[in-house]
Amino acid sequence: MSLLKSNTFISAADVTDINALADKALQYKANPLLDKALGEGKRIGCLFLNPSMRTRLSTQIAAQNLGMEAIIFNVGSEGWQLEFEEEAIMSGKTVEHVKDAAPIFGKYFDILAIRTFPSLVNKEDDYSELYIKQFIKYSGLPVVSLESATLHPLQSLTDVITIKETFKEPRKPKVVLSWAPHVKPLPQCVANSFAQWMNAWGEVDFVVTHPEDYELDKKFTGNAPIIYDQDEALKDADYVYVKNWSTYNDYGKIYSNEPEWMLTAEKLKLTNNAKVMHCLPVRRNVELSDEILDSENSIVTQEAGNRVWAAQAVLSELLKG
Amino acid sequence: MSLLKSNTFISAADVTDINALADKALQYKANPLLDKALGEGKRIGCLFLNPSMRTRLSTQIAAQNLGMEAIIFNVGSEGWQLEFEEEAIMSGKTVEHVKDAAPIFGKYFDILAIRTFPSLVNKEDDYSELYIKQFIKYSGLPVVSLESATLHPLQSLTDVITIKETFKEPRKPKVVLSWAPHVKPLPQCVANSFAQWMNAWGEVDFVVTHPEDYELDKKFTGNAPIIYDQDEALKDADYVYVKNWSTYNDYGKIYSNEPEWMLTAEKLKLTNNAKVMHCLPVRRNVELSDEILDSENSIVTQEAGNRVWAAQAVLSELLKG
Amino acid sequence: MSLLKSNTFISAADVTDINALADKALQYKANPLLDKALGEGKRIGCLFLNPSMRTRLSTQIAAQNLGMEAIIFNVGSEGWQLEFEEEAIMSGKTVEHVKDAAPIFGKYFDILAIRTFPSLVNKEDDYSELYIKQFIKYSGLPVVSLESATLHPLQSLTDVITIKETFKEPRKPKVVLSWAPHVKPLPQCVANSFAQWMNAWGEVDFVVTHPEDYELDKKFTGNAPIIYDQDEALKDADYVYVKNWSTYNDYGKIYSNEPEWMLTAEKLKLTNNAKVMHCLPVRRNVELSDEILDSENSIVTQEAGNRVWAAQAVLSELLKG
Repeated sequence: MSLLKSNTFISAADVTDINALADKALQYKANPLLDKALGEGKRIGCLFLNPSMRTRLSTQIAAQNLGMEAIIFNVGSEGWQLEFEEEAIMSGKTVEHVKDAAPIFGKYFDILAIRTFPSLVNKEDDYSELYIKQFIKYSGLPVVSLESATLHPLQSLTDVITIKETFKEPRKPKVVLSWAPHVKPLPQCVANSFAQWMNAWGEVDFVVTHPEDYELDKKFTGNAPIIYDQDEALKDADYVYVKNWSTYNDYGKIYSNEPEWMLTAEKLKLTNNAKVMHCLPVRRNVELSDEILDSENSIVTQEAGNRVWAAQAVLSELLKG
Repeated sequence: MSLLKSNTFISAADVTDINALADKALQYKANPLLDKALGEGKRIGCLFLNPSMRTRLSTQIAAQNLGMEAIIFNVGSEGWQLEFEEEAIMSGKTVEHVKDAAPIFGKYFDILAIRTFPSLVNKEDDYSELYIKQFIKYSGLPVVSLESATLHPLQSLTDVITIKETFKEPRKPKVVLSWAPHVKPLPQCVANSFAQWMNAWGEVDFVVTHPEDYELDKKFTGNAPIIYDQDEALKDADYVYVKNWSTYNDYGKIYSNEPEWMLTAEKLKLTNNAKVMHCLPVRRNVELSDEILDSENSIVTQEAGNRVWAAQAVLSELLKG
Repeated sequence: MSLLKSNTFISAADVTDINALADKALQYKANPLLDKALGEGKRIGCLFLNPSMRTRLSTQIAAQNLGMEAIIFNVGSEGWQLEFEEEAIMSGKTVEHVKDAAPIFGKYFDILAIRTFPSLVNKEDDYSELYIKQFIKYSGLPVVSLESATLHPLQSLTDVITIKETFKEPRKPKVVLSWAPHVKPLPQCVANSFAQWMNAWGEVDFVVTHPEDYELDKKFTGNAPIIYDQDEALKDADYVYVKNWSTYNDYGKIYSNEPEWMLTAEKLKLTNNAKVMHCLPVRRNVELSDEILDSENSIVTQEAGNRVWAAQAVLSELLKG
């Protein structure tokens, strides 16, 4: 039975059994070439409308492990700007409409993987996931999100895997998503997505902490407690997931950027010797201190390494699907 | 017997039998991996001096289908600017002369594929095809044009294939190349090339329509009727090939840009329910209206899909040659 | 026995037997697919912090010849700017610290190849090889230099190979490294590296000639005679290695740029009909005249072709290592 509900992977809602998908990823971690024949003669197109390092490399490697050919295409720098609005009169900067480009990717590839960031200007457009939905609509292909306007599901699956393989006690771990300062307004994607997956997974006690006015979309945080006092939130935490995001309500702003929200060794003492996670890239000594990142508590490298297996599990399901 | 006269593919004049080459492409469409062993151990270098999407992806896929290794290299962004003028004193922006770079590609690759657009400034240089000819001269390799200063032969072979597979009546179809408005001066390549191939193929009744002063080089349009009245030209057309180009005589200009030259559903009524073609990318509602592109008459996706098989047929001939 | 002292290749000092390594490269030249099985299932990441043509293409081809998967990643344009300073407070332009990025490359790849140019601003930083050493320290992988701040060892190994295969007399050839004019300040890497390798190889009579004040770091030129009179230096030369570099002592400057330092056919008469070498790219008629580059004396194409075999020999040793 497929672990995906359909042939898209853009949200936790696309997964039938998160635990089983994480197990599958860990199977690939133990045996990367287990399904080397599965993708033979298949081709994945990885389209980047925005920069990427881990996501691009791990997806390419995952595809290779499955025997697929992976073609990387940096849409902006190697090609040109795409148009996503229906009925646009294209007399401006956009050179090609997704309605024309996507069906052609449908002819060239077997799976389409896409990275497309939000504008952080128009909340409605961003939160409608216009761009990736247009690709799904017009390509006719299985589509994998490599981070879209509001979510980053391959990262979140990776995070599930990483918690799963590091937590061995017979109880639910306490997992805290903790807002961190940054120098510029960032998307809410990773935070939204982490919240969505923690809630959907259901095997953790999940708490969110951030300064007032940084509330995320309720659609993703659900019933998770929102705690404005970081110290209180960190208490007895087994995992602290550190991430900056810009405001959601008054969209795309930096309201306050208090450096005291940066996680320190001192604050970590409030936790249950918590493991510290971050999706990377991380601004050292702005988002997270050297003392944390260079300590035994940090599992960010293990986490990033797991990106390969998360991608491989998802591609594998799509290939079988 | 080879379907190419030599080991270059930059023009219709390089083909011995256009029909046979199109048939070969359609054979690959039916069976993509037919000649998977042909390119084993061979390597194609695809050099882009200008952006590309369909051409790059389809050529890379065609090469993979033939078992070749394809290396994509974006000359400007990954490397540096090349010099093409003989005896240049290179104290300016150009970093390496094609006389030095091309022979090295000759050592590294078995086939060289190159995209190099015209300047639209110096007509004589552009129409001498200086850039691609320098690559041919100095690389010593089979060279495939991925669109050069005046022609785009892989696109035109694709167009032949697409007409061939969609026209089933026992008569010659009427094919109209129809100029379209655009927002900036574009090369004449696709229009030149389409005219050249239609004439060389000889299996269509070919007509060109454009505003006065947009005459193409007679070398390519040959004896095809040039009609300034678009409505008259469209009458009973089986295919309308829509494309913008800048002026050829007074080189690289936009003289007039009348929106009424954009093809509409109303105008299409003049035709024999014509199929509409375009090489893409297309500026929607500037070059071609949504109502046409989203209609049953548009075959632009099928056309773009055929790019793979055109490239595969040509690479296959070069590999055998 | 390994021909490398450890699992890094960033300097002549990393090689146990230069002659044997050059012989190995020539073996691959005679039989490129000799060790096609050696790299099976292995993956090399080639990271470019700076532009590259020959180095990138030849390394990719060498990896393919050994059966490895090669992933090319242009760090700046496809990803973002890395930070290399320890304890940096990353509130500026750098997005990710090498301390975080490198360990992840360590998870994704089996070998890491890196190009990272000097700043030409801070001599101490450049000559400490901070960047590549940080990659070595934090990736935990075998690291190959694709040109670093002070050296370009794959180029120099290529140069050894090229001299080896073209010099057949039973005596040491006289090899002259001759400074050339250029239009902008260039790194000292290629010159440093060539000097280091000629000295370490020990099978040539090696002489350096340049204008006063262009002295290279003694660490690399060693006991090689430094001659300010180019004509005197060229006398009876068997090989002239032409290269520009900016000043080392008063760091990164152009002191004088006398065009008379450009090698000409007239000057070549002073030599023993010397073969002329250059790492390329070369500014024609600035660094080297057309008359030389287009003559029988130039072996720059053969030299550049040998880049593949140099890279293949080194990767092969690392794979076995």
